[in-house]
Amino acid sequence: MQGLMMQLPLLISGLIAHADRNHGDITIVSRLAEDPHGPLHRTTWRETHRRARQLANALAHLSVRQGDRVATLAWNTHRHLELYYAVAGSGAVCHTVNPRLFDDQIAWILAHADAQVLFFDATFADIVARIAHKLPQVTHFVQMTGREHLPAKFPRELLAYEDLVHRHSEHYAWPQLDENTASSLCYTSGTTGNPKGVLYSHRSTVLHAYACALPDSFGICARDTVMPVVPMYHVNAWGLPYIAALTGARLVLPGPLLDGASLHRLIVDEGVSFSNGVPTVWAGLLQHLAQQGGGLGRLRRLAIGGSACPPAMAESFARHGVEVLRTWGMTELSPIGTVNVPRADEATLAPERREVQGLTQGRPLPGVELAILDDDGQALPHDGESFGELVVRAPWSLRQYYGREEGDGFTADGWFRTGDVATIDAGGYMHITDRAKDVIKSGGEWISSIELENILASHPAVAEAAAVAVPHPKWDERPLMAVVLKPGAGLDRNAMRAFYDGKIAHWWLPDDLVVVDEIPHTATGKINKLALRERFRTYRWQSQPVTVTQPR
Amino acid sequence: MQGLMMQLPLLISGLIAHADRNHGDITIVSRLAEDPHGPLHRTTWRETHRRARQLANALAHLSVRQGDRVATLAWNTHRHLELYYAVAGSGAVCHTVNPRLFDDQIAWILAHADAQVLFFDATFADIVARIAHKLPQVTHFVQMTGREHLPAKFPRELLAYEDLVHRHSEHYAWPQLDENTASSLCYTSGTTGNPKGVLYSHRSTVLHAYACALPDSFGICARDTVMPVVPMYHVNAWGLPYIAALTGARLVLPGPLLDGASLHRLIVDEGVSFSNGVPTVWAGLLQHLAQQGGGLGRLRRLAIGGSACPPAMAESFARHGVEVLRTWGMTELSPIGTVNVPRADEATLAPERREVQGLTQGRPLPGVELAILDDDGQALPHDGESFGELVVRAPWSLRQYYGREEGDGFTADGWFRTGDVATIDAGGYMHITDRAKDVIKSGGEWISSIELENILASHPAVAEAAAVAVPHPKWDERPLMAVVLKPGAGLDRNAMRAFYDGKIAHWWLPDDLVVVDEIPHTATGKINKLALRERFRTYRWQSQPVTVTQPR
Ligand SMILES: Nc1ncnc2c1ncn2[C@@H]1O[C@H](COP(=O)(O)OP(=O)(O)OP(=O)(O)O)[C@@H](O)[C@H]1O
Ligand SMILES: Nc1ncnc2c1ncn2[C@@H]1O[C@H](COP(=O)(O)OP(=O)(O)OP(=O)(O)O)[C@@H](O)[C@H]1O
Ligand SMILES: [Mg+2]
Ligand SMILES: [Mg+2]
Repeated sequence: MQGLMMQLPLLISGLIAHADRNHGDITIVSRLAEDPHGPLHRTTWRETHRRARQLANALAHLSVRQGDRVATLAWNTHRHLELYYAVAGSGAVCHTVNPRLFDDQIAWILAHADAQVLFFDATFADIVARIAHKLPQVTHFVQMTGREHLPAKFPRELLAYEDLVHRHSEHYAWPQLDENTASSLCYTSGTTGNPKGVLYSHRSTVLHAYACALPDSFGICARDTVMPVVPMYHVNAWGLPYIAALTGARLVLPGPLLDGASLHRLIVDEGVSFSNGVPTVWAGLLQHLAQQGGGLGRLRRLAIGGSACPPAMAESFARHGVEVLRTWGMTELSPIGTVNVPRADEATLAPERREVQGLTQGRPLPGVELAILDDDGQALPHDGESFGELVVRAPWSLRQYYGREEGDGFTADGWFRTGDVATIDAGGYMHITDRAKDVIKSGGEWISSIELENILASHPAVAEAAAVAVPHPKWDERPLMAVVLKPGAGLDRNAMRAFYDGKIAHWWLPDDLVVVDEIPHTATGKINKLALRERFRTYRWQSQPVTVTQPR
Repeated sequence: MQGLMMQLPLLISGLIAHADRNHGDITIVSRLAEDPHGPLHRTTWRETHRRARQLANALAHLSVRQGDRVATLAWNTHRHLELYYAVAGSGAVCHTVNPRLFDDQIAWILAHADAQVLFFDATFADIVARIAHKLPQVTHFVQMTGREHLPAKFPRELLAYEDLVHRHSEHYAWPQLDENTASSLCYTSGTTGNPKGVLYSHRSTVLHAYACALPDSFGICARDTVMPVVPMYHVNAWGLPYIAALTGARLVLPGPLLDGASLHRLIVDEGVSFSNGVPTVWAGLLQHLAQQGGGLGRLRRLAIGGSACPPAMAESFARHGVEVLRTWGMTELSPIGTVNVPRADEATLAPERREVQGLTQGRPLPGVELAILDDDGQALPHDGESFGELVVRAPWSLRQYYGREEGDGFTADGWFRTGDVATIDAGGYMHITDRAKDVIKSGGEWISSIELENILASHPAVAEAAAVAVPHPKWDERPLMAVVLKPGAGLDRNAMRAFYDGKIAHWWLPDDLVVVDEIPHTATGKINKLALRERFRTYRWQSQPVTVTQPR
């Protein structure tokens, strides 16, 4: 028997309509991509909704039909926000592309997705000009500025965003789509290989927004001022553009300026209370504060994920009165899977238990199911000790990659295989020890590269550290640390090993370190292990080997 | 084009499984219906899940099939909680019935719903024994106790709940139902006429739980201790049994003891941080505190709805450090539609604006759309002034009453007609002035009975006040106040009118008052206006009429 409740689809257009009706006059602040150092642009939810409707009419005029891919190469700005709602709201697919990828990768992704219209910030006009000849399927190029900013020369016909908006009526009724309609498309970071496409739906996006706004997730309410520092070109800025509309929060969009000083100014001037980002971005902010001084204004919570947040980073923010929410997510998961917040029994936990829990990636959002599997695909116990490949199910998890075969990346019974290696404890706390591909296999046993990196990151001489598996004659692989030192600081092998001593099992001790000028990062700010492994593939271990005594 | 996301249904079984996996050892405290003054019963989410699975096997054994109605007449206890999950989880319909109704009403509802199994607390064995002969369709009667508490005599075969649980295996796999499957059935309070059935679905229940847990709704997290005082026999205790599982909160179930002293003890002893209820229940608690003294422990938020919360009540709780969340809901809405929390612009609001906003029923939860219609069904502006019938749409609103015709109670375009009269302001704040049926129509204009009641409730001599429309020779209807005085206090017509003077338009001034011993309440604790109207239908106005000068 079916219930007798209204069959209203969960739609992205419903979010912006809700914000308009109930928070219409609430401010959205944005840096302009074409003039990042100029005055901040200020608009409202009502105005954003109005311009999104104009844009929806414009898209129809450009012959964009339901299901068509409309691509963006753009920063976090009010125009990108309008596109999010206009494209998905009208039934097309908002295909965000990471402009920090190489030209070839961008062209490949746009071709793979068969994008028909490409919107881009003035900042990226050069990239688009260079690859335009590889994009025969793109019928319209739109620069996200007024007409006066269009480049003098461009290889294809070029439209101005503001013209499109102004030429069209604000009268537009959002279609009542099936909630499983595709809404947006994003490719993974390409950290471990070629980027893979994830095709979100309206339903998955809206459910993810509800779950992420919960008190034990990001905990966002109408009194928050939310600044997405995670780019809108990557996994929808973790859903913050939707969550802000759902909750009626103020929104601050930082545009292209993501350096410590620029973020600091926005946080303080605009009273940002919540933000999110990968550890490397926040390292920049902390460095700025260390050098220039200053506080963090009304900032209270910071969701950090994408890579493991080093404990030292969370401690620094705590000293500024900011709580770090450790978050684990994946493009495939919309992206949020877990957030680290305390449970009901927190007050009665033993301090060391609380500390261990505090360093994990947290508990699954309601709706997310996690399991860990051994090499034979058998479920491992949730005892905080056993580790294996993390698999996941959720209404906001993909069930198939875009343009790939069904089953590719999934268990036989349909769980998504994350490629991450993790433990789960009895309280549901999940701890990532590594990516399966980054794990260091010494004498058949696994060493966690993340743990090695986190420890060394807290050494006073170290600015950044990466653990790399390097082939070893006796143990197959042994850990080598690539280290960027702080200005004027020094660190050698023995001092490093002494620092590790007592903090980890003896046989985990990295055998050596190499001081480097810079650790390579991917386009989404993660340590590029592929590049590091390649660089150190032929590393010659010191003639005098380290004594390793492994269990078993 | 469809998105490529997992098609996982939103199911009630998913909530309890989530609580088990991530909050399995968190405590659920319950008074026992059969021994309310005895020791508190303590269990956990894991144990609740286990017993719910045993019960699901027991239901199958009793030949309960998907879609069958399993009725309950029960207090808020751990067993009722188990039934919520066992019945709905296995695909049957958990039909909660209000035991405070008259025998005939209970029998009528059970017959209308065609309930096949009836679970009841020992407290209600007498009711069931009296009406059993009217329930031929009920094949199994189960008293929610152990065998030792079964009554010596009962007109039908009677099973003991604990036997059912213990005789069955805990191995049970929740079926993967369509999320639109009916999950539970509840009838409206019958305040304005006969109760009407609302058939909830898994989808509507789970979406309602997400929305209610949000920071701007009830704001519930895993560190909360949640005590549903709203009965589980009425609108699923506003969803708290689901919300607590979703968030992993501790749960305190007060059983049959809802008097001020008993609630106070539980709040303090168990560290309740969140509770909900109708104003009359909380009046009892405040009265107890006024007489006995004492604080409210860790209680921080109290959701009050079902009837308007008098400002004086919210102020009393504020003095105890408890924030009152004014809430408007309806059985038809699962039930929550609005909650009063501030918006982003709160800090900059003029104090009088903030005060007006603070007294409204609040903003719609994300997902809820509100509109107000004039007598011709035309939408009225959201200006905080225009008032008309409130209509609503939401994924957790009914689309048709159970066993009634389609369209009955809905606008032509499918909005649910609430029967409430309200204003909505530009910030989305909705204010109920009356029920359409309670409105006092004086010379063609409407007087808000709620406003008259709220004002008089703050008079030091008044314990409770009700405004009734009484036929009037000149004005059609005029307001008469029925008043319960505090012990030893006095109030006459002139003193009352002087108290109102300046607080409302002159022509709203109630013409007279009648001091009564008690104001009649319905089975869900609302003022019984039907009974009051009936009682004062032939009220003789004083010979010297009040001078009324009305606009228009
Ligand atoms: N809090 C975290 N701690 C450790 N690792 C994290 C955390 N959050 C995310 N990650 C890592 O990031 C991955 C998801 O990143 P993303 O979807 O951006 O692409 P990617 O996995 O880096 O790239 P690709 O899948 O193309 O190789 C996770 O699988 C995990 O390895
Ligand atoms: N915060 C509130 N302020 C004023 N009235 C409220 C509030 N919350 C609920 N109500 C009233 O309660 C009604 C919903 O109550 P419920 O669904 O329990 O049944 P009922 O309307 O009292 O009974 P019936 O529909 O059978 O006449 C609303 O329509 C509204 O009139
Ligand atoms: Mg990946
Ligand atoms: Mg009603």
